[in-house]
Amino acid sequence: MVLLTNKQVLLTSYVEGNPREDDFELKISYTNTTLQGKNNGLLLKNLYLACDPAMRYRMSSDDHSDNIDLLKPFKLPSVIEGFGVAKVMESTHPDFEEGSYVWGVIGWEEYSVIENPRVLFTIKYTDVPLSYYAGILGIGGLTAYFGIKNISSIKEGEVVYVSTAAGGVGLLAGQFAKMMNCYVVGSTSTDEKVDILKNKLGFDDAFNYKREDLGEALKRVCPNGIDVYFENVGGATLDEVILHMKCHGRIVVCGMISQYGLKEKYGIQNLFHLTPKRIRMEGFADINYRKLYPQYLQWVIPLIRDNKIVYLQDIAKGLESAPAVFSGIFHGKNIGKAVINIVADE
Amino acid sequence: MVLLTNKQVLLTSYVEGNPREDDFELKISYTNTTLQGKNNGLLLKNLYLACDPAMRYRMSSDDHSDNIDLLKPFKLPSVIEGFGVAKVMESTHPDFEEGSYVWGVIGWEEYSVIENPRVLFTIKYTDVPLSYYAGILGIGGLTAYFGIKNISSIKEGEVVYVSTAAGGVGLLAGQFAKMMNCYVVGSTSTDEKVDILKNKLGFDDAFNYKREDLGEALKRVCPNGIDVYFENVGGATLDEVILHMKCHGRIVVCGMISQYGLKEKYGIQNLFHLTPKRIRMEGFADINYRKLYPQYLQWVIPLIRDNKIVYLQDIAKGLESAPAVFSGIFHGKNIGKAVINIVADE
Repeated sequence: MVLLTNKQVLLTSYVEGNPREDDFELKISYTNTTLQGKNNGLLLKNLYLACDPAMRYRMSSDDHSDNIDLLKPFKLPSVIEGFGVAKVMESTHPDFEEGSYVWGVIGWEEYSVIENPRVLFTIKYTDVPLSYYAGILGIGGLTAYFGIKNISSIKEGEVVYVSTAAGGVGLLAGQFAKMMNCYVVGSTSTDEKVDILKNKLGFDDAFNYKREDLGEALKRVCPNGIDVYFENVGGATLDEVILHMKCHGRIVVCGMISQYGLKEKYGIQNLFHLTPKRIRMEGFADINYRKLYPQYLQWVIPLIRDNKIVYLQDIAKGLESAPAVFSGIFHGKNIGKAVINIVADE
Repeated sequence: MVLLTNKQVLLTSYVEGNPREDDFELKISYTNTTLQGKNNGLLLKNLYLACDPAMRYRMSSDDHSDNIDLLKPFKLPSVIEGFGVAKVMESTHPDFEEGSYVWGVIGWEEYSVIENPRVLFTIKYTDVPLSYYAGILGIGGLTAYFGIKNISSIKEGEVVYVSTAAGGVGLLAGQFAKMMNCYVVGSTSTDEKVDILKNKLGFDDAFNYKREDLGEALKRVCPNGIDVYFENVGGATLDEVILHMKCHGRIVVCGMISQYGLKEKYGIQNLFHLTPKRIRMEGFADINYRKLYPQYLQWVIPLIRDNKIVYLQDIAKGLESAPAVFSGIFHGKNIGKAVINIVADE
């Protein structure tokens, strides 16, 4: 039996409100790496962890998962689970080779021993940064792609508004919409990020929602209304945006980061407009579209290689940083996709 | 110049809350019937008036119309306008013949003189009751049809819940869903109407929402959840129904009768579930699908002739009854489509 010292991030009690650093516990444990007797086993050395807002679902005792395994509340105590990138150290699984790189659902720990992995893909293209598989080449990229291409029914020339536009999914949703010749505006939480949206990511306009009344800002940047709202926020933002939607507008409900932690959710009063404005609102979760991944990859890899997409990562070093970084995304601290780099030498 | 005494129902001030009888004014006026000089003029003798909840939009000063002409606030004072059935007494319009029957937008008055009618159709089939064109063969029927056939993406065997199920649109939506081999449940406001839904209209189950907690009732009648919610109510009903929706459920937002009159609309807290449950909510208004009318008519006329649909009308006599009947639909007083029969002898 070979034991490895294994640094881990645990959830030991459910989170109230927005996550805080001290909601998580760092622990050194010893992990038995033996795959003997495990037919479809993998020993993974974890490299990058994605900080995805949707992980917050699992940190409450309320089960909003509707039987989606990956959204079910963590059992306590639990090593945090999320999307990430790893190297296969040992394998008794016919689909995964030792020495290869994979992305999918792994633990927030240095090493994971996984039997019968539920969501794990072998990485084929390694000429791009491996960390991209924790974002643009992983679930975040696919989410932005599916939301814009499949849910939004977007048409050339339409006006698209993206909230949390400088986040890992928002910055891609905006750029994908630009590629379809839309007029794209974004909102974010700092002037620095507004500048990045406008001058680096190609947004047509952007504003700092903390500096300005949302209604006034939307009137200014989308004076004729919004065709597609890529919704990442929920609450009062959504309520106001409904008033600015055009007839036949679509609200692509990617997530509602403002609402996870609230016991009493914000009450949306403007749904009454859905009928006269004939608005469609639609939620979607990655379980719907994971099968589209190969198609997405074929589409996006050349765009990355040809520098047709600007992708931003906010990479923090060391597993120790994970609690602060994950908590930070609920306050807009990240610029681009928040990723933890566990092992500096890969 | 020929003057006709013309009884009219007017709106002289905007309505607060639910409409009340005394929000309307009955008046005898004199209408000049001369069509001379009017190239596309019609003198109509009005026969049946549909009491449609959506007319409430026009009775507030708040403009929710989003440029839909037929939802714009009435100018004050105004003869009420709505869908109805009429006989063409005189015509200088090439599309309409004297002596023919029409349905479309007319005034709540005995006679209407209309130039360049916006929405008016000649009635082809007169072997069915003329009053049907104020409901099942008019905008109400088309609304139920379009909601179920086009918006709901309904599939055989699915569970469909219809609120205000004994109303003019609800009773058709439920029966159209039954024709697609769905399991259909409805809610309504009296035990008598529950009985009608179950024993006359072919609903699989039904309940009186005034007698029972909605959550408990839905657990009982749809224990495995709802695939399609045909939404006519809004507010607290919608908030609760979201919790009972299945994954990939669709909410067909036909209207929200509980919300028209509220200055402070009810705040919906459960939209957070749209993403994990991957729910679609979609509003629609008749302006979208008026062009489908001929297709709908071809489909529904044989069903009516062959008694394959049970259609219920709640016909009140005399224009004087209109204010009370219209107000009554906001309290579930009608059984079936509420219609005013202006002229008893047609």
